[in-house]
Amino acid sequence: MVFTEKYHLEKGFCCGNGCKHCPYEFENVPVEAVRFLETLVVVRPGSRPLAVAQDRLNEKSLARELGALTADFRAVFNFEELQKAAKDIGLPAILKTIRMGYDGKGQARIASEADLLPAFAAMKGAPAILESFVHFEQEISVICARGADGQFAAYDAPENVHRDHILHTSTVPAALDEMLATEAIFVAQRMAEALDYVGVMAVEFFVGGDVLYVNEIAPRVHNSGHWTMDACLISQFEQHIRAVAGWPLGSTQRHSDVVMTNLLGDESAAWADLAAQPHVGLHLYGKGDARPGRKMGHFNKIRPRQA
Amino acid sequence: MVFTEKYHLEKGFCCGNGCKHCPYEFENVPVEAVRFLETLVVVRPGSRPLAVAQDRLNEKSLARELGALTADFRAVFNFEELQKAAKDIGLPAILKTIRMGYDGKGQARIASEADLLPAFAAMKGAPAILESFVHFEQEISVICARGADGQFAAYDAPENVHRDHILHTSTVPAALDEMLATEAIFVAQRMAEALDYVGVMAVEFFVGGDVLYVNEIAPRVHNSGHWTMDACLISQFEQHIRAVAGWPLGSTQRHSDVVMTNLLGDESAAWADLAAQPHVGLHLYGKGDARPGRKMGHFNKIRPRQA
Repeated sequence: MVFTEKYHLEKGFCCGNGCKHCPYEFENVPVEAVRFLETLVVVRPGSRPLAVAQDRLNEKSLARELGALTADFRAVFNFEELQKAAKDIGLPAILKTIRMGYDGKGQARIASEADLLPAFAAMKGAPAILESFVHFEQEISVICARGADGQFAAYDAPENVHRDHILHTSTVPAALDEMLATEAIFVAQRMAEALDYVGVMAVEFFVGGDVLYVNEIAPRVHNSGHWTMDACLISQFEQHIRAVAGWPLGSTQRHSDVVMTNLLGDESAAWADLAAQPHVGLHLYGKGDARPGRKMGHFNKIRPRQA
Repeated sequence: MVFTEKYHLEKGFCCGNGCKHCPYEFENVPVEAVRFLETLVVVRPGSRPLAVAQDRLNEKSLARELGALTADFRAVFNFEELQKAAKDIGLPAILKTIRMGYDGKGQARIASEADLLPAFAAMKGAPAILESFVHFEQEISVICARGADGQFAAYDAPENVHRDHILHTSTVPAALDEMLATEAIFVAQRMAEALDYVGVMAVEFFVGGDVLYVNEIAPRVHNSGHWTMDACLISQFEQHIRAVAGWPLGSTQRHSDVVMTNLLGDESAAWADLAAQPHVGLHLYGKGDARPGRKMGHFNKIRPRQA
């Protein structure tokens, strides 16, 4: 269904899709402005989570301090540091800007030494981070919330499949070992508590073998949590508003199994067929221009819980 | 959750609660204005369903024409007609204004001949209808939709319990014989087709013994359909917009069992306790003044489907 009020910029609501030019996307919110506002009013989640989430170095360092694993990484501020980092970490590796990266943008894969210089040039002088290549079989995320009183609640972790570095589907329940699912939620809770976080937050993980690696955190509702709109009584959007408004958190219980599929570019042209499907909840964002790769909407296909 | 955009008058959306002074409440929409608009644009549901639903005589006559049962009734335009009608139908009976009645207002119960004159006076000269007293054990309603292409879909019929003539709870599934549930939906469909209806419509029934009596129809979303917001993938609100916009109708399937409870007056003060309950979806209407009997919100308590 068209719920444009949830997505349109003029409403002042972050849709959680990482829209590049949106002033409500957390990557685009200046930490200094939030710090100033905090001298006047309560701001939730606030400047500290923002500063951490905007900076891959801070983000990964925090995860490690809390005992979680991440890809090996080194800060890279010049070409010499990149060369040294490549030796330390080994190749292949991925060079990423420390700030403003999403959906695979601001990233360069380095397979061999010959790739070092072009990768460095691609950063255009921005501070960067070299990350070791994590061999993973799955990507999952934890969508969780922390209330103003410290109450914590997490939804079941979806399994996320990307296409061309853009989220394609989120499936719940994930085909995931129960222990790992529990551990992922514990890691998210430790991070939320360390940041004194209030609101909905997402933590992305790689799953390789029996090991979880924190990939990144998003201090907001998240595309991989859009399935909660149709498979849970309380969606991540309501949960976020409850948290920042000081309400009790809602139950994160799921009444249905679900697959969320993003509609990119002209995939949204199939809206009428999707709307007619019996178990499909359709959400269009009211965007006019269906450019290739642009997130135009998503749909949730639910079915009765199998377990 | 506070979804004020669905309810506030300034948004131009009928909440389905029969709010007395709301310009979007169908009882308050002049049929002549709609007829004029129909000469200029497509209006859905349109003037005909409005004219029928605003008039208890038309409403009951249509139901009877379509082979459904109603309470016995007579039109009453003066006191002599009331006396004759009371003889024809028998007492006790209920005198109701033909127009503008809801939540028990504009009604007078006539137990004996002594009540005839005060009841007639209470109508204040408005055209009225005398209805026989139907002995019923249950009240149910059918919330259904008809698309612009004639497609028809109905939700499971809730069982409705009133307190002081105001809806208190709607429970789904109703404790109702399967045959009667099916018949109720067929009656609703015949009425929707006879009216060439487009949009969501509610038909209220009394259930007495094994017999259904049509009570009234509402050409809009309905308070007794608010449970669809949390127990169905597609709510009655989305369904209505789909219908009038010419979209395919959504599935009326229910993923959960549910009890909807209205919050009247200061019952809404318990919002924080309700919000904290694990299986409760809370909807507050953003009304400032919690007058006794005023519909301030409702909550849906869901549980896994038992069948």
